[in-house]
Amino acid sequence: MSTIANDTFLRALLREPTAYTPVWLMRQAGRYLPEYNATRSRAGSFLGLATNPELATEVTLQPLERYALDAAILFSDILTVPDAMGLGLRFAPGEGPRFEHALRTEAQIRALRVPDLERLRYVFDALAQIRRALTRDGVQRVPLIGFSGSPWTLACYMVEGQGSDDWRQTKTLLYARPDLMHHILQVNADAVAAYLNAQIDAGAQAVMLFDSWGGTLADGAFQEFSLAYSRRVLGALRREHEGRRVPAILFTKGGGPWLQQMADSGADALGVDWTVNLGAARALVGSRVALQGNLDPCVLFAPPSSIEQQVRAVLDSFGPFAAGERVGHVFNLGHGISQFTPPEHVHVLVDTVHAYSRGLRA
Amino acid sequence: MSTIANDTFLRALLREPTAYTPVWLMRQAGRYLPEYNATRSRAGSFLGLATNPELATEVTLQPLERYALDAAILFSDILTVPDAMGLGLRFAPGEGPRFEHALRTEAQIRALRVPDLERLRYVFDALAQIRRALTRDGVQRVPLIGFSGSPWTLACYMVEGQGSDDWRQTKTLLYARPDLMHHILQVNADAVAAYLNAQIDAGAQAVMLFDSWGGTLADGAFQEFSLAYSRRVLGALRREHEGRRVPAILFTKGGGPWLQQMADSGADALGVDWTVNLGAARALVGSRVALQGNLDPCVLFAPPSSIEQQVRAVLDSFGPFAAGERVGHVFNLGHGISQFTPPEHVHVLVDTVHAYSRGLRA
Repeated sequence: MSTIANDTFLRALLREPTAYTPVWLMRQAGRYLPEYNATRSRAGSFLGLATNPELATEVTLQPLERYALDAAILFSDILTVPDAMGLGLRFAPGEGPRFEHALRTEAQIRALRVPDLERLRYVFDALAQIRRALTRDGVQRVPLIGFSGSPWTLACYMVEGQGSDDWRQTKTLLYARPDLMHHILQVNADAVAAYLNAQIDAGAQAVMLFDSWGGTLADGAFQEFSLAYSRRVLGALRREHEGRRVPAILFTKGGGPWLQQMADSGADALGVDWTVNLGAARALVGSRVALQGNLDPCVLFAPPSSIEQQVRAVLDSFGPFAAGERVGHVFNLGHGISQFTPPEHVHVLVDTVHAYSRGLRA
Repeated sequence: MSTIANDTFLRALLREPTAYTPVWLMRQAGRYLPEYNATRSRAGSFLGLATNPELATEVTLQPLERYALDAAILFSDILTVPDAMGLGLRFAPGEGPRFEHALRTEAQIRALRVPDLERLRYVFDALAQIRRALTRDGVQRVPLIGFSGSPWTLACYMVEGQGSDDWRQTKTLLYARPDLMHHILQVNADAVAAYLNAQIDAGAQAVMLFDSWGGTLADGAFQEFSLAYSRRVLGALRREHEGRRVPAILFTKGGGPWLQQMADSGADALGVDWTVNLGAARALVGSRVALQGNLDPCVLFAPPSSIEQQVRAVLDSFGPFAAGERVGHVFNLGHGISQFTPPEHVHVLVDTVHAYSRGLRA
């Protein structure tokens, strides 16, 4: 088993005692950092950056140089799997992701297959290279997180072809041809499971499923079309590697109504957005899972004193840590960090999480 | 007291027994109807239509000619109040609302005042005219609903100047200068209360507060910046008019996490979106309020058999009506009806609600 200097993050996910609340930030390697923008310029584009293991390693480590973060996360995109299926991922400047070959016909849907994972070799190479870069004299600084979009979230983009306010085409397919939607989701689930297992083999020490659009589904449809397939992925994951448990995090943005059911999905931890009171969530899920979240990223636009106050409020809302109780909290934002965030404000956040949470346990 | 031929909607909101579940649809007078598009063409623009009492009356009644809806709703916009404050509401073609004079300075914010309600005379004239058009031989067909945006939702557009994915400027003000945000919200609440009371005087027999963006707030911030001001409006409303109770509905899109607290806001009914299980919501709010909702509007893109199935599932999820229990359910969508909805599918929805819900009570 390799040595990790700071494994607080992994222990919190596994609901083991920690001296403080670990923190990382969704999109912590991103456009709010000037050094990220410099590397991205060299790469030419977002996908050029994400598919170049050397440059992906460089940006993955950038936020760790600035801040006392407790985890690194692979620099990549949630939509790599459908791209490997041949749908043709593109990012137009100033816009979100688009697929050149969105699923428009039954024949296209029936032809979907779990992709050859060799097409995602750049991801596994990046993970291996990041692990090496994190390690000095045999000791790794912090754990490395791998990830994928959830089967449902992949399906949203695969059917719609791009982001949407209402996912009209996706939901029309769901309600009009649930058989075809289930087919897409089965293929996606098997592909995502294989992809995450290969990430674990390549060096990911925790994995996260981003169910970014599960919260747009109606009660009932969420369970049938999102949660069931996240569960299928989680059930197929390798959970031990290098002699260590590999925890899995499930994050459904807007998933507050379904936390009880998500707690039985096989995930070790649930991500929650800022609409959820952490104490109430903890009462719902008990000691079945750890919780990750949930500061509103917009708090980072406020002055430092306000950031400190809001960070403390999130930590307080989780409630006290009683000796022997199997609970865990990983501090994060409830959504990716905004490109407009002043980088110095992230210092305030990270340092307040660490200092204040030590006090809560003392 | 005037006579209403079908007051099922009002009785359901007041949690009195009804023979079936009443139904109306948010944006039921809208772009999915060819006759609406014809009238709008004559008006020249959305605002031209909304500010012309004669044409607003015409489109308000159009869906009632097609479908057996249990309520009419004033044709207007949620942002009339800040427009009357002088912010200059505009609708660019193919875009959402915009304010010409968004709140950018402390001086602008300090200068905000409850507007002269004479500037909203066109709304009150429309209500009076709609009431007359709904009435024949002294008998009114169905009740008439008035509405406004909530204080928080108005503030979102007033600060941001237009719709937003993350309400960055609005939330920056909230976290950086909560004193200024509270000032805006106080003025908004007093203005909305005066506006809704004038709507009631003019003929509205129920009122609805659209808190469209309350669900974007963090737990804690929602209570302080949205719910507190909705409560202030609800507490200031005239609740009796023409010898009849005037029920008030509070709808926070994404408000599922806070239904318990919303049930004590002074509202007679809470609108809920499709992520909420109606039976679970009913268990939370008890007999304090009725519930309104919550079909995903995208269901209406599916074939009739699927629409019937999903409508029945919503009705079933509310659960049985026990004799003597003070509960109420008003069927609605969880969001406004889409412009892409096939009009004949709305027949299926309305008729299924009526037929199936009669059976549930039998």
